[in-house]
Amino acid sequence: MNVGGRAWRTIFTRDDGAVGIIDQTLLPFRFETLWLTRLEEIAHAISSMQVRGAPLIGAAAAWGLALAAAKDASTPALERAAKTLVATRPTAVNLQRAVSSVMAQLSGVSEAQRPAAARKIAEALCEDEVARSRRIGELGLARFRELHAKKAGGGPLQILTHCNAGWLATVDYGTALAPIYLAFDAGLPVHVWVDETRPRNQGASLTAWELAQHGVPHTLIVDNAGGLLMRQGKVDVCIVGTDRVTTNGDVCNKIGTYLKALAAWDNHVPFYVAAPESSIDWTMASGDDVPIEERSATEVTHLTGVDGAGELRSVRVTPENVRVSNYGFDVTPARLVTGLITERGVCAASRDGLEALFPARERA
Amino acid sequence: MNVGGRAWRTIFTRDDGAVGIIDQTLLPFRFETLWLTRLEEIAHAISSMQVRGAPLIGAAAAWGLALAAAKDASTPALERAAKTLVATRPTAVNLQRAVSSVMAQLSGVSEAQRPAAARKIAEALCEDEVARSRRIGELGLARFRELHAKKAGGGPLQILTHCNAGWLATVDYGTALAPIYLAFDAGLPVHVWVDETRPRNQGASLTAWELAQHGVPHTLIVDNAGGLLMRQGKVDVCIVGTDRVTTNGDVCNKIGTYLKALAAWDNHVPFYVAAPESSIDWTMASGDDVPIEERSATEVTHLTGVDGAGELRSVRVTPENVRVSNYGFDVTPARLVTGLITERGVCAASRDGLEALFPARERA
Repeated sequence: MNVGGRAWRTIFTRDDGAVGIIDQTLLPFRFETLWLTRLEEIAHAISSMQVRGAPLIGAAAAWGLALAAAKDASTPALERAAKTLVATRPTAVNLQRAVSSVMAQLSGVSEAQRPAAARKIAEALCEDEVARSRRIGELGLARFRELHAKKAGGGPLQILTHCNAGWLATVDYGTALAPIYLAFDAGLPVHVWVDETRPRNQGASLTAWELAQHGVPHTLIVDNAGGLLMRQGKVDVCIVGTDRVTTNGDVCNKIGTYLKALAAWDNHVPFYVAAPESSIDWTMASGDDVPIEERSATEVTHLTGVDGAGELRSVRVTPENVRVSNYGFDVTPARLVTGLITERGVCAASRDGLEALFPARERA
Repeated sequence: MNVGGRAWRTIFTRDDGAVGIIDQTLLPFRFETLWLTRLEEIAHAISSMQVRGAPLIGAAAAWGLALAAAKDASTPALERAAKTLVATRPTAVNLQRAVSSVMAQLSGVSEAQRPAAARKIAEALCEDEVARSRRIGELGLARFRELHAKKAGGGPLQILTHCNAGWLATVDYGTALAPIYLAFDAGLPVHVWVDETRPRNQGASLTAWELAQHGVPHTLIVDNAGGLLMRQGKVDVCIVGTDRVTTNGDVCNKIGTYLKALAAWDNHVPFYVAAPESSIDWTMASGDDVPIEERSATEVTHLTGVDGAGELRSVRVTPENVRVSNYGFDVTPARLVTGLITERGVCAASRDGLEALFPARERA
């Protein structure tokens, strides 16, 4: 989508083979790109969240294997590279799937041809990712149009989102934000309530930034505020992304998603999850089985911002040495989810719903 | 309660008539006290949240009238002072009630005797506040003992709280934290999950600090985390304070309380509200009627902490000029509340429950 009036993607390449990314840890304060040339740099970019968001992590991992193959395309070397990449973020299933897919495609290719093949595979994966995001956007937009048409009193469609499932989390368009961008571009009036999304503030720093860059009307709120807004009738629909959907329709997503789903349910607000096929984990029967990543205490105790002089600074906002628990994700039970918006259509968050769209023989 | 091993209260006096407070805006980084000698300083202390928490605001307002009376004890001057104080925070009913109570008591006193009378009234109000907090603590402790006795697998009673309803929000003991302090002092094993409570982080900066100073085991979490912890069975009971309880049992409290009540309800976790009589608003039939205070956007966009050199710094954590909505409170419907813990006993969050404990003829 647009940054400063120019169209961007989150991952791109240079003729010399380097892979470009936007350093998302500097947003919303600075817009800087980085050129990566080694597997280790890609792995670091994923683990340090310079790139983040399930679909983008998958795309970055594919490029990580391409960079690894350019140095040493032997099977043992690629297997080491795959292991390094998968270890960077344990919760996102896209990462494992992207790595497995690239490895499977390379297995039938001779070592000499692997470097070029790996780049082609990564490029195709990115193009495919964009097409999937756009399709989710179109299907979500159709729902938004229906909701707007039946909205009493008119005015913009009021949409609440949590975390960042925008184009910064994918290659382009986003998942949860894709319908919002397509709605805005199509002239459907929308306004987005942006949860700040503690502890890493992806809503405040990324979603608010990317909506502003593209010109979409939005208001930042603390994570605590969504319940009140829904009780006040100020939210017409919630839409979030997901890191993993289990076969019963449970949704693993950024910590706090479950609380918003409860509030939506309690106030009869539709709660949609943009769930690309890559986020569906056919091997897991229930959200209760998903390993929940625990992250560093400093994400909670320290915050980075700019001071009055424009300097980037990290400050501690808690008592020194306070004990912290910092789970990155929670599980929203399927019963609270109105629908899953996938590339193939919108379905109920249930085994039946998922299997109707994705018969076993057609799964990726 | 204890600070550095010494017992403190949140508001205290000096022989020369000055009123002492702890500057709570500096916590948890610095423990500093301020001496106030003028009404305007009390009003500023309340509006800038140097003193905060419904019961403490009421106590501070009483001392504000005492300071005003010392300068000019005429009825018009006191009425102006009362108006100034009531305007500082629109949502807390304690403030209005404390001011009305002091004014009513002073109305029958001659102008010459009012300065001394106003100090006595403020002192008595503070002592009464401490006794009420202690009584809430005892009644809550009895519930905690029951819950701990039936807890499968043993271990400490796991308690989740939101915002700061501790001794820093009252004169001593606290409301929601009073049972926790009494439990800890009595040797009942407890562990407290402390919500950080965005945007002002009263949990991270005040609750975590006061629990640490008194030695109570606790763990800081982001506001988004409580739902996951409840789903994981890691919370035995929730307890929060309140700014206003309406006659149907609805609870107005810090923004985000409603979301925790929903999660407690969804996971069969008891959800108690420590509700001193002063927080019950007999004039309001439903939480939907409570005016919800909107506060400054900078509470959301900026955070204050200490940098690596120990300097107190404010940083902006959002895009520049982002539009913000910042409601301070939300309403938890009575149906989600297990019980109201008042000074007179624990009752159902309902008109019947409240009226049984507080017959009309016995209300303050």
